[in-house]
Amino acid sequence: MGKKRNIIVGQSGGPTSVINSSLAGVYKTAKERGFHKVYGMLHGIEGLLDEMYVDLSTQIHSDMDIELLKRTPSAFLGSCRYKLPDIHENPAFYEKIFAILDKLDIEVFIYIGGNDSMDTIKKLSDYAIVKGHGQKFLGVPKTIDNDLALTDHTPGFGSAAKYIATSTKEVIRDAMGLSYRRKTITIMECMGRNAGWLTGSTALAKTEDCCGPDLIYLPEIPFDIEKFLKKCKELIQKKPSIVIAVSEGIRVPDGRYVCQLSGGSDYVDAFGHKQLAGTADYLAGFLAGELGCKTRSVELSTLQRSASHVASRVDINEAFMVGGAAVKAADEGDTGKMVVIDRVSDDPYMSAAGIYDVHKIANNEKTVPRSWVNKDGSYVTQEFVSYVEPLIQGDYQPFMVNGLPQHLVLKR
Amino acid sequence: MGKKRNIIVGQSGGPTSVINSSLAGVYKTAKERGFHKVYGMLHGIEGLLDEMYVDLSTQIHSDMDIELLKRTPSAFLGSCRYKLPDIHENPAFYEKIFAILDKLDIEVFIYIGGNDSMDTIKKLSDYAIVKGHGQKFLGVPKTIDNDLALTDHTPGFGSAAKYIATSTKEVIRDAMGLSYRRKTITIMECMGRNAGWLTGSTALAKTEDCCGPDLIYLPEIPFDIEKFLKKCKELIQKKPSIVIAVSEGIRVPDGRYVCQLSGGSDYVDAFGHKQLAGTADYLAGFLAGELGCKTRSVELSTLQRSASHVASRVDINEAFMVGGAAVKAADEGDTGKMVVIDRVSDDPYMSAAGIYDVHKIANNEKTVPRSWVNKDGSYVTQEFVSYVEPLIQGDYQPFMVNGLPQHLVLKR
Repeated sequence: MGKKRNIIVGQSGGPTSVINSSLAGVYKTAKERGFHKVYGMLHGIEGLLDEMYVDLSTQIHSDMDIELLKRTPSAFLGSCRYKLPDIHENPAFYEKIFAILDKLDIEVFIYIGGNDSMDTIKKLSDYAIVKGHGQKFLGVPKTIDNDLALTDHTPGFGSAAKYIATSTKEVIRDAMGLSYRRKTITIMECMGRNAGWLTGSTALAKTEDCCGPDLIYLPEIPFDIEKFLKKCKELIQKKPSIVIAVSEGIRVPDGRYVCQLSGGSDYVDAFGHKQLAGTADYLAGFLAGELGCKTRSVELSTLQRSASHVASRVDINEAFMVGGAAVKAADEGDTGKMVVIDRVSDDPYMSAAGIYDVHKIANNEKTVPRSWVNKDGSYVTQEFVSYVEPLIQGDYQPFMVNGLPQHLVLKR
Repeated sequence: MGKKRNIIVGQSGGPTSVINSSLAGVYKTAKERGFHKVYGMLHGIEGLLDEMYVDLSTQIHSDMDIELLKRTPSAFLGSCRYKLPDIHENPAFYEKIFAILDKLDIEVFIYIGGNDSMDTIKKLSDYAIVKGHGQKFLGVPKTIDNDLALTDHTPGFGSAAKYIATSTKEVIRDAMGLSYRRKTITIMECMGRNAGWLTGSTALAKTEDCCGPDLIYLPEIPFDIEKFLKKCKELIQKKPSIVIAVSEGIRVPDGRYVCQLSGGSDYVDAFGHKQLAGTADYLAGFLAGELGCKTRSVELSTLQRSASHVASRVDINEAFMVGGAAVKAADEGDTGKMVVIDRVSDDPYMSAAGIYDVHKIANNEKTVPRSWVNKDGSYVTQEFVSYVEPLIQGDYQPFMVNGLPQHLVLKR
């Protein structure tokens, strides 16, 4: 084996609470395995094209910094949403990227991201093989949406689920405390355009001290607004407060998003994804009009993907593990692969890093199985809860400075 | 002194993260001072009228339960929004309340709440004096809005400010991580109809590791939408991401709420307060249209008043203190008074409970002084930050069970 050269690592797509724990795992493992330099792309591949990068040894000076990085939400290096062109469409793009990689003496390229990022790994590794470049390309999974195929779950999901379940308990209490003669319906809106993992996680709020949400609607099941109204009407006759969780992406049977029923915005991002918002607002207005009771909407918005102050210990540790496992895999010769998390055991919960060919993964969205949703599509089953529960366990105490959680800052 | 009789305590108005710490303070101090029974009204005075109450010794069995109660958000006993009639308008109402108090052998009536609750204490104590009833009536302050006069600050505010500042740091990071070529404007909306204490607390996010919000708009200052647009335009030319905090209650110079500019809802509650929402949504849409960049709104909604998982230790302790101080004051013969928090010292921060005549307090809203907002009304000053900072210090670790914060449940 010759002398090890350099690694470059980037972050892509929507941030999570623990994406930096994967970065920490890459850095620490790379150093331990004797790689020379570890570079960080700033704003992913988009920044790399502008030759924006840092030597991570100028950012991380101690084990304490690594611990702080693990507790820092959002992409420390900056993220991007950048779809690579097909190789035959724009060879100049690939020549430019590989010229930069050669200049930096890169041996391993690691990209932490979701479905779109795995597409990047696939294209770059294909190009390298076709053109005879020696770099290895590894993907590290990341997304609160938990919609990546072949991995048991994605880093970032557990912490988002923990934040959502915690907030759901608090919102249910808040609504219950205020509802006596005046009945209240609260609609909580969670992220997850096509996959209901986050919305379903509100069910974890059902504990010995909390009744949990009354209804849960995932985007996998067509949303029948008349049946929904009927259920709400029945429930609110029996209880002073009902709380309903909905995905931002629920659609009526003709395919329109619920948030579009009010003529809401239709912004489309660079990947052709529609930006959705206002589902809870729309339903709160609809129910107020139909039932005449007080309604309220709570949109968890970007809070759910950045609330590192209540991150899951299991999630932070797994995020670190998959970062390190990518370095190990590359060091052992793998390329065009994504690290995945395999669930080794349920009780006690145990997981380990595995590895998959990225060609099998990219752009397949993993949705909630129909059998994990009840018959009329208004709640998740115990199987769903048992799957998520191990992922929200344990805490990493934030490093509190002057009353607030401290984060690691990028120095330019 | 004769044998001590019973105490009844109720909770009223919008919940907070620490209103139950005041309840714990009332209970523990009442037991220590030898009161016989401590009753809790269910849903405040509204529930009491229906003779809904519990003996708190059936709910709190140990010091551990007291600690759990301190960590439980929203009104443990249930709250209400109930405006008492004037005495001359509805004497039957008062006769009914006092008949219930006599039946329960009540010596002390304690009400934990905001401005409207202090009005309740005033009316009940006036009636008792006029009619020769012996009960004593004490108010314990509570409101995240911090808009009560004569007290340095209100319990509940510090924890809400801590949650808001924590979330602001996280939202700023999230937005920054994603903004490179594609610029982003994020509008965060905080509660506080007429008082900008909560919105101003976003300034605490300005720390060594965070630039803080770029602009802050309080409801005390008329909102000039053209000047606002100009400022945003200048800022977004210089930075890839800007984050702006606005109060739900900002109004344009003609008096209309910003959220009404879009024809938003106009729901009016039992106290004649308008229910506001949609200010951030409106401004995000406005800026997207004017500046053509990506905009996003984050409404902190009821999360900001119920997020006990990140409550302030100073706040929980002070809430407990004012609950206990109300029992002490009543036990020493006070009535028609509200307990207040006096700031004894700034550095080091020290506070103590004081007591004020409730006639001086009720229905005077304390707003942010003009001198604590900068000249053009777009940020708070260092004086504002120095005032809030001591109130967000320290934590009470939640009791985590199965990955989630545990709360005390009312057993009926």
